[in-house]
Amino acid sequence: MSGPPRAVALARLHVRAALAPLAAEHPGALVLVACSGGADSLALAATTAFVAPRLGLRAGAVVVDHRLQDGSDQVAADAAARCRALGLDPVEVRTVQVARGPGSGGPEGAARDARYAALSDAADQSGAVAVLLGHTADDQAESVLLGLARGSGARSLSGMRGQVGRLRRPLLALRRTETEEVCRAAGVDWWTDPTNAGDGPDAPLRSRVRAAVLPLLDDVLGPGVVDALVRTADQLHDDDAALSTLARELLSAALVDEDGPGRAPRDVVILDVEVIEAALPALRTRALRLAALAAGCPAGALGREHVLSVDGLLTRWRGQGPLHLPGGVTATRVCGRLVLEPPHH
Amino acid sequence: MSGPPRAVALARLHVRAALAPLAAEHPGALVLVACSGGADSLALAATTAFVAPRLGLRAGAVVVDHRLQDGSDQVAADAAARCRALGLDPVEVRTVQVARGPGSGGPEGAARDARYAALSDAADQSGAVAVLLGHTADDQAESVLLGLARGSGARSLSGMRGQVGRLRRPLLALRRTETEEVCRAAGVDWWTDPTNAGDGPDAPLRSRVRAAVLPLLDDVLGPGVVDALVRTADQLHDDDAALSTLARELLSAALVDEDGPGRAPRDVVILDVEVIEAALPALRTRALRLAALAAGCPAGALGREHVLSVDGLLTRWRGQGPLHLPGGVTATRVCGRLVLEPPHH
Repeated sequence: MSGPPRAVALARLHVRAALAPLAAEHPGALVLVACSGGADSLALAATTAFVAPRLGLRAGAVVVDHRLQDGSDQVAADAAARCRALGLDPVEVRTVQVARGPGSGGPEGAARDARYAALSDAADQSGAVAVLLGHTADDQAESVLLGLARGSGARSLSGMRGQVGRLRRPLLALRRTETEEVCRAAGVDWWTDPTNAGDGPDAPLRSRVRAAVLPLLDDVLGPGVVDALVRTADQLHDDDAALSTLARELLSAALVDEDGPGRAPRDVVILDVEVIEAALPALRTRALRLAALAAGCPAGALGREHVLSVDGLLTRWRGQGPLHLPGGVTATRVCGRLVLEPPHH
Repeated sequence: MSGPPRAVALARLHVRAALAPLAAEHPGALVLVACSGGADSLALAATTAFVAPRLGLRAGAVVVDHRLQDGSDQVAADAAARCRALGLDPVEVRTVQVARGPGSGGPEGAARDARYAALSDAADQSGAVAVLLGHTADDQAESVLLGLARGSGARSLSGMRGQVGRLRRPLLALRRTETEEVCRAAGVDWWTDPTNAGDGPDAPLRSRVRAAVLPLLDDVLGPGVVDALVRTADQLHDDDAALSTLARELLSAALVDEDGPGRAPRDVVILDVEVIEAALPALRTRALRLAALAAGCPAGALGREHVLSVDGLLTRWRGQGPLHLPGGVTATRVCGRLVLEPPHH
């Protein structure tokens, strides 16, 4: 007796691992597959349709139509029809309005925000206990490379998590080609997003990484590079989680509570220099970043160079400040204290 | 009055920052520039020849001839002549024997080992207080990408340090093109290593990264990618240093001292499960790695998957072991203790 193809077995293993704890806690509950009509999310739909009932769970799907391309309604309707044919129920298409203009994090960021809001809404209304996403190891490797380009440290290199709130990403260990094998084995046709294949200057950055960078890295550094990037993401995520936890503890230990109400408005952050400067650099800079955010620096504008300049007030004391930080926040060292002050208070 | 070109000023600034503490501690001492004859190390030689005497230091050079290419003796002699023309004294050529065969870390690793041994030797014999290396931001970015390909976490991504023992790398903030500008400004011709420019399958991995990967990343991700990779290296170095320090503290806290001599041979490592399992994952896995190394696992053979399997004895207790680790080390969980045991004791 021969079992299912390797890719199918692998996908089932990982979907089962993601769903089993949900089945134990919420017998009979509904899980939703977020389906774009692409190979990855249809492979997830096919696998979930197989695994969920065997664990006593119900499986449905949500297809989000971003209305960013002509014919996107047809792509969404086809994806929904394929999910229904796989036995998922309920299957719903949600049309979203993607925000444009400044502050929306670029067109890719805006589409992502709209998509996650729609998925969350669909889960709320259907009472689903989880939303499953079809991200693969290739997506993870692309995320690491995009994080590298930002150069903002372990957090931006640590990619996507397998579990965040109700979201689950059971296919992070599978290659994109393996999801195509799963679709073929299930007899499911998939849709190929033309914007994903682009490597021209107008293609989204992620698409250019996918089309041009990863194949070259594979070629030059060896075929294990996607796995290496995925391992890197896992380790850096653990590192960043540990350092963030310890930095929050450091910040709590260093916070000075000025005597009595009215002495310091709530959004002034006052730290004990002795406590902060004794800490290891990676913890010190993370704690100072948290302090600057608490004092009102906008996260997007607060760069490493700002945090290091505040750190310089502690470690290479060149005068007492004030340093001017994004958002009008000032940092001053006075009498053994580091004071981070929002404007106009 | 116009000052020196920007690249020259930048190089002088960084060399001065590297040498000033040495000048304060060892007035009149000798520093050696490691010179290959390439633009980066000749730029360093020219800059050091200018800066060192102004700080009351003497500057010499060492040229290492690896004898790996025909005519390498001539390249070395030319480099030495250029260093002498810049006013460096003493200038010495050292010929090294590069180890071949298994265990030498590949041809690039073997050449590097031989080079650093020769530099250390030259410093010992001349009484130099520091050896200056010409690595640039481009070298650092290449190191990060090579580390990514290994996928072994923050340590392998954190690149080269500006200061390790007697070694100093003052040009890590400069681009390779800026070192060429420094050479042109000093009227110094440099040698271009033909193996560095290769992108064929036989070229060294670092050369292929230099010739093919970085230009493409520049093109796709934007011209700031080298800076981003350098920033990443700095931050991940701090992160890894902090986590390594904390992991060593955790290991010390978890080590169980068996009562009396003879109860446990010195190379058996016994840890208190309760102490280790309460720690954050990034600290736990680093402490377990250190414990496995202490029990005799060879560093090169001990992968993340081994460390995670030992971690599984703590967090996903699936029987008590024994697990078999590289080097014949076994890991067993017994009575609230994790025992890492070398073979045949």
